[in-house]
Amino acid sequence: MAEKTNAASFNYVQGDLVSTDPLLLERDAHSRERTGVAQIERVMRGEETPADVVADRTALRRRGVNPTVQPDLSLRVAPGSVVGKPTIDGRARDKITGRAQYSVDTYLPGMLWTKVLRSPMPHAKVSSIDTTKAEAYPGVKAVITYKDVPKATRAALSAEPAFAGEPIAAVAAETAAIAEEAVALIDVKYEPLPFVLDPREALKAAAAKVRTTLAANAARSPQFTYTRGDAAKGFAEAEVTVEVQVETSFEQHVAMEPHNAVAVWDRDLLTIYTGTQWAHGTANGVAAELGIPQSSVRVLAKDTGGGWGDKTGRHPYHIITALLAKKTGRPVRWELNRKDIFLDAGHNYPLFATAKLGVKKDGTITALEGTSYVPSGAYGARANSDDWESATRTYKIPNVKVGGFSAYTNTVDTSALRSVGEASGTFLTENLMNRAAEALNMDPLEFRLKNIETAVDQVANLPYSSNGLRESLERGAELFGWKSRWKGWQKGPVDLTKPQRGVGMVAFTCNKGANSPPMTAIVQIQGDGSVVVNTGAADIGGGQRTVWSMIAAEAIGVALDTVKINAMDTQAGPDALGIFGSRGTKSVGTGVLYAALNAREKLLQGVAFKWKLSNTSDIELKEGKVFRKSDPANTAFQMTVAEAAAAGVVIIDDVPRPAAGTIVGEARVPAFSGYSQKTFGAGFYEIEVDPATGFVRVLEAVQVHDVGRAINPTGLVNQIHGGIMHGINKALTEELLYDPPTGIVVNPNLDDYKLHMIDALPAKIQVDWVEPYDLIGPFGAKGIGEPALLPPSPSIHAAIRDAVGVYVNQQPMTPARILNALAKKA
Amino acid sequence: MAEKTNAASFNYVQGDLVSTDPLLLERDAHSRERTGVAQIERVMRGEETPADVVADRTALRRRGVNPTVQPDLSLRVAPGSVVGKPTIDGRARDKITGRAQYSVDTYLPGMLWTKVLRSPMPHAKVSSIDTTKAEAYPGVKAVITYKDVPKATRAALSAEPAFAGEPIAAVAAETAAIAEEAVALIDVKYEPLPFVLDPREALKAAAAKVRTTLAANAARSPQFTYTRGDAAKGFAEAEVTVEVQVETSFEQHVAMEPHNAVAVWDRDLLTIYTGTQWAHGTANGVAAELGIPQSSVRVLAKDTGGGWGDKTGRHPYHIITALLAKKTGRPVRWELNRKDIFLDAGHNYPLFATAKLGVKKDGTITALEGTSYVPSGAYGARANSDDWESATRTYKIPNVKVGGFSAYTNTVDTSALRSVGEASGTFLTENLMNRAAEALNMDPLEFRLKNIETAVDQVANLPYSSNGLRESLERGAELFGWKSRWKGWQKGPVDLTKPQRGVGMVAFTCNKGANSPPMTAIVQIQGDGSVVVNTGAADIGGGQRTVWSMIAAEAIGVALDTVKINAMDTQAGPDALGIFGSRGTKSVGTGVLYAALNAREKLLQGVAFKWKLSNTSDIELKEGKVFRKSDPANTAFQMTVAEAAAAGVVIIDDVPRPAAGTIVGEARVPAFSGYSQKTFGAGFYEIEVDPATGFVRVLEAVQVHDVGRAINPTGLVNQIHGGIMHGINKALTEELLYDPPTGIVVNPNLDDYKLHMIDALPAKIQVDWVEPYDLIGPFGAKGIGEPALLPPSPSIHAAIRDAVGVYVNQQPMTPARILNALAKKA
Repeated sequence: MAEKTNAASFNYVQGDLVSTDPLLLERDAHSRERTGVAQIERVMRGEETPADVVADRTALRRRGVNPTVQPDLSLRVAPGSVVGKPTIDGRARDKITGRAQYSVDTYLPGMLWTKVLRSPMPHAKVSSIDTTKAEAYPGVKAVITYKDVPKATRAALSAEPAFAGEPIAAVAAETAAIAEEAVALIDVKYEPLPFVLDPREALKAAAAKVRTTLAANAARSPQFTYTRGDAAKGFAEAEVTVEVQVETSFEQHVAMEPHNAVAVWDRDLLTIYTGTQWAHGTANGVAAELGIPQSSVRVLAKDTGGGWGDKTGRHPYHIITALLAKKTGRPVRWELNRKDIFLDAGHNYPLFATAKLGVKKDGTITALEGTSYVPSGAYGARANSDDWESATRTYKIPNVKVGGFSAYTNTVDTSALRSVGEASGTFLTENLMNRAAEALNMDPLEFRLKNIETAVDQVANLPYSSNGLRESLERGAELFGWKSRWKGWQKGPVDLTKPQRGVGMVAFTCNKGANSPPMTAIVQIQGDGSVVVNTGAADIGGGQRTVWSMIAAEAIGVALDTVKINAMDTQAGPDALGIFGSRGTKSVGTGVLYAALNAREKLLQGVAFKWKLSNTSDIELKEGKVFRKSDPANTAFQMTVAEAAAAGVVIIDDVPRPAAGTIVGEARVPAFSGYSQKTFGAGFYEIEVDPATGFVRVLEAVQVHDVGRAINPTGLVNQIHGGIMHGINKALTEELLYDPPTGIVVNPNLDDYKLHMIDALPAKIQVDWVEPYDLIGPFGAKGIGEPALLPPSPSIHAAIRDAVGVYVNQQPMTPARILNALAKKA
Repeated sequence: MAEKTNAASFNYVQGDLVSTDPLLLERDAHSRERTGVAQIERVMRGEETPADVVADRTALRRRGVNPTVQPDLSLRVAPGSVVGKPTIDGRARDKITGRAQYSVDTYLPGMLWTKVLRSPMPHAKVSSIDTTKAEAYPGVKAVITYKDVPKATRAALSAEPAFAGEPIAAVAAETAAIAEEAVALIDVKYEPLPFVLDPREALKAAAAKVRTTLAANAARSPQFTYTRGDAAKGFAEAEVTVEVQVETSFEQHVAMEPHNAVAVWDRDLLTIYTGTQWAHGTANGVAAELGIPQSSVRVLAKDTGGGWGDKTGRHPYHIITALLAKKTGRPVRWELNRKDIFLDAGHNYPLFATAKLGVKKDGTITALEGTSYVPSGAYGARANSDDWESATRTYKIPNVKVGGFSAYTNTVDTSALRSVGEASGTFLTENLMNRAAEALNMDPLEFRLKNIETAVDQVANLPYSSNGLRESLERGAELFGWKSRWKGWQKGPVDLTKPQRGVGMVAFTCNKGANSPPMTAIVQIQGDGSVVVNTGAADIGGGQRTVWSMIAAEAIGVALDTVKINAMDTQAGPDALGIFGSRGTKSVGTGVLYAALNAREKLLQGVAFKWKLSNTSDIELKEGKVFRKSDPANTAFQMTVAEAAAAGVVIIDDVPRPAAGTIVGEARVPAFSGYSQKTFGAGFYEIEVDPATGFVRVLEAVQVHDVGRAINPTGLVNQIHGGIMHGINKALTEELLYDPPTGIVVNPNLDDYKLHMIDALPAKIQVDWVEPYDLIGPFGAKGIGEPALLPPSPSIHAAIRDAVGVYVNQQPMTPARILNALAKKA
């Protein structure tokens, strides 16, 4: 096998990418064997010819799934293996039938209800507050104000609200109605302060300060910049230069389950029930703010009804309910309503960006340059780098100079929303690529295939742990029939008297779905060989628990239905960071995998002791049966996993000693280095524009993603379907609107903040994936949750151009903006 | 130090008892250092003279505590140490104020209620059953009968009830009242079968079979026998032989919290909320009976309101609620009422025993012989060996021949009740010793001090891991003032016209409080250095959680208030067996100790890496501060435990690698061999008998126990106080009564099953303990829960003899039995 190198072809598909990390090497051998990858490799090398393996290299990496039927697995994996088998999520049925219990369904005896008083203006000083009437109101049990909360960058209640809707005071009462009536009785006087909404304005020297304590509105110092090569030189070499200016919008996550918390104190232990993507983050944030040990805050969640990036860490509702519960000695509940959420939860930030691309006439890209601005809200500090993630990596570009500016603004709080950065960034980047292809009159697919760089991450200067972008593009084009459906760049006038159809396609690189610490888990083998997995990570609706169960079952060698994932509980599972960044499979799954392998090894030590073997290397456990690898038919060396669990040995100072009890495997996996870990994919869309109304209907969607290896094809298909639905809304409808003179949100509700329903899905959807087998992910897998969102919006953007000849550079591409673009062109 | 030997003096107090187990040796060094024992040893060897250590060998082993005041710690332990400091249990305040939530306080939305139909006769065959009327009754959601339950030794519902009160059918309904009304509508016909209540009758060849499927009523085969030396020869050598015949009663445990279960299915996961002493036993028993994986049964408990041995493992109420919940798709609750409990829960078995003792005139014991019979109920299989525990070990007796016979009987179910075996056995043994002392006209204390054997367990032929019996007797005698208060054996007539006072004393050896596997735990160090302990073991009211917290805090070196014990959850904590056999401190605590040490070592590995040390041996962690042992003042080598937690390293193949995340320590501790582990103690009581009524009032109680080392003196005092209260009731009031002709229990309620309230406690109580430092227990500790019960009843028995000249050989020693004994004597 070739040496590891930063250059040329080290893609696994090409046969030579090798890890030098002994931990990875050892784990990898196990993973390949158990998922059948090793067997297929042997078949391909002619060392083995089992009848049940389809020796087709393509089949290993590509499995067509028709969403209207069960996935058709054209590739058989190792007999008995769990990973790779389509598996319906254990929670699916209950969620569909309404039987599932979400965290927001938590009602405790004696519970009080919360409402808050919110600032009516985007920036003000509270000059006086009088809560006596509210406190005296029958049924009110406690009123707290900004005077009662701990100091924090964003205090849970503020004396100087820095956005319209920021909470000033909170009431706990016997009912929500009483609490709301009492809020109206709080007598508060404000002194208005100047405000700024636009990040480009905010960064000007003379701009009003977003908070009076700020020296400047820059949210990051230094701001993000990235350079390689010489951009000026690159543009000088270019034969054609294209430019774009794009703008996106504030979007709320609109999770089905509203943000919620029920807080209750049991002496010095604070328990918070809350829908969360990161329970330990919540617990530890609350502990720090209240000045108590982390072990004194227990966060529990039932099913979490979606997060998308806005249910991580400590939020004001956690602190407010905790303080009200402390003050009243009773459980205190706060379920934010949709208005609360639109005004006061996190939002995706809008991107204001310009960029230009230099190309040669043969399609070679010579240079990229661009600048972006984002509003971070009054307290956030968005990073900007992911806005440029795809632009700086997807294509071979020798000369790059980009920068991003993040500013505090008197707008809603910002938080990560599914593929934060890449989502807006891809809308920018793929717009630019399309314009370049148009300028060169090249097929946009050909332009991309010519320019993509799949071997090396040009920013990190590291090989990719896997990269299936080329195969994704090729497979997507095949499924869509791109070659026959792409009719060339339409230059002539468009018939605006009737609906027009168009096609568009994109490629992307995404930072989400990489492997990042902490990767921890506890895996317990019970006395009968069944398995319980403890992780501090949550299933937020993506089927994460099913994936973790499959990983544990496969790793240990037991049936899937004997593995249970414990409910999320910060006092049971270790901190595995949150379910964000598409970490569920690749990062939390890695923790589960290593903890499972640790438990398995401890189990097999008991078997080795019983069989008088010096170590476990010749012992195999599969489908709940233990046997000798070298002599599988020998009945003297066979036992069930339950018998193995009963063998109970611990190794102390190299000496095995009998020890009964649950076998506890645990892992805290170090980060793996030497590779860039990214996710990739492609989209192909057909849409129809009605020039009379500006209404866009999506007719067909094809998405193909590089997922490393599919753990659960069913869950994977569901995630991509969700991404398509979400992406269509992002493309066409979602935006929070401000009234600039007052700084007030004008559509904080689901009537005016527009969302398509499921009937907006195209009639024809084809999703597929390629499986280059990621070196670092568990069983070769990487993340899919966020990448799934990326293709729709830029694909639709390109398809609108194909249909009616205009680029609509503001997202969402609403009917009004399409009509405006058409009018401008005409 | 001397070699390990089975002979002579290897008591730690005598300076020479050494473990050869490397695991123990390593742990022991740590434990002694952290609790100050090592320091005191150094002081005693003249190697150190710190001002804050009272260099008094006696003080180390003896700490007087006056229950009316806070414990007075005459011995200072290591500065900053947690173990040994009186600590109020974290649950105490809530329990006293009624704020605590017990498992029986579990009410789930949509919950149904259960009632059962019970057999009205002690043995019958159900010839027909018709549930149609009950099923049609409004509000009834399900009816199940013996036809619907899995087969088991004792099926949850029976077609052939083998005791009066055995359940036949069960109803789940919207309210308990509806369920009860519906039970009355079940039409059932019985065919009566012959029955037997007395074990001595049951073992006769012609006896009716307790169940028709039994070939014989013997509950164990072989029955228990134990022989050493030659009993016949021993009695031939004896100059005096004394004999006793004793009888004790069925006693119910009468835990404050009634037995309960709420079962609910979430697809294939069964969750049971139940007050339990052994959650994994419950879960695993239910799983086996229902034929599902252990991981599919989750048992959760809040506070458990007492167990005393009757809340272990699977009970019919778990199976019945699980089946009803499955059938109805709703949560199903069953809270047994007191009648249910008296008829159908477990009970301590009565002992029917005869024994004789041979002694020489100088007080030397030459031989012991005895036979006992116990009824096991229809399904149990009581062991009998613990009945002879104290008799065969406490005193040097060269020739012994004892046996115990256990029989199935058509009586209530039997289960372990606090010091099962030893409680009745000590009533027998100490009675025998008193009679021997009387026959020889010796002071009963002198007789015992002459005969006790504290070095070697004569049955196991192993040295004791610790034995403080002699010190307990001496300290008890000192506290009570025995020498001045013992007036010799009163032989003359007693004045029966007025109340008479008497004193009595006893010694005992107890099998409870030994260290037994599984000993498992998980200890997690959070990001700020605070600690969460996961154990599958429950706190049943004995303050176990406080003890485990103290052990973990001491072992790791952090403040007690940063350690939290997670709520009991079989899907979070590993199986550490139950809280029975006084395992809480010594066995579960050992698991916690090793898991804590494992977590600590992992934490310190990160520090070693940061400080560039090759290992952790020179790193100390105390009171949340990390420093170098060899250079504690060097500020370059100091950090907080939070900083240490952030250092985050794992060692893989001897190479440290940075790895973030919760540090998970775990342990599955092997059993330690080479020692006999027992608990010991002594009681000294004064009582007053009113000869007119037979009423006994306890005036004064002194109990001194060998506890190895007190982890929490406050909890220890509470446990002994509880034992005194419990033991007074056992001595004087508690018995379940049968009507022999019908086999029916006549007092299944708290009016007729008599219990003294707390006002029966003597005005003067002194409890104390000695601390020989147990080689095997965590920080030298052993169990106290059960031993605390042993002194009262035999002490009171002896004191009644002293007061009014009669031995009352049936327990409880009720007024009627005392009056009968007085009448018989007269």
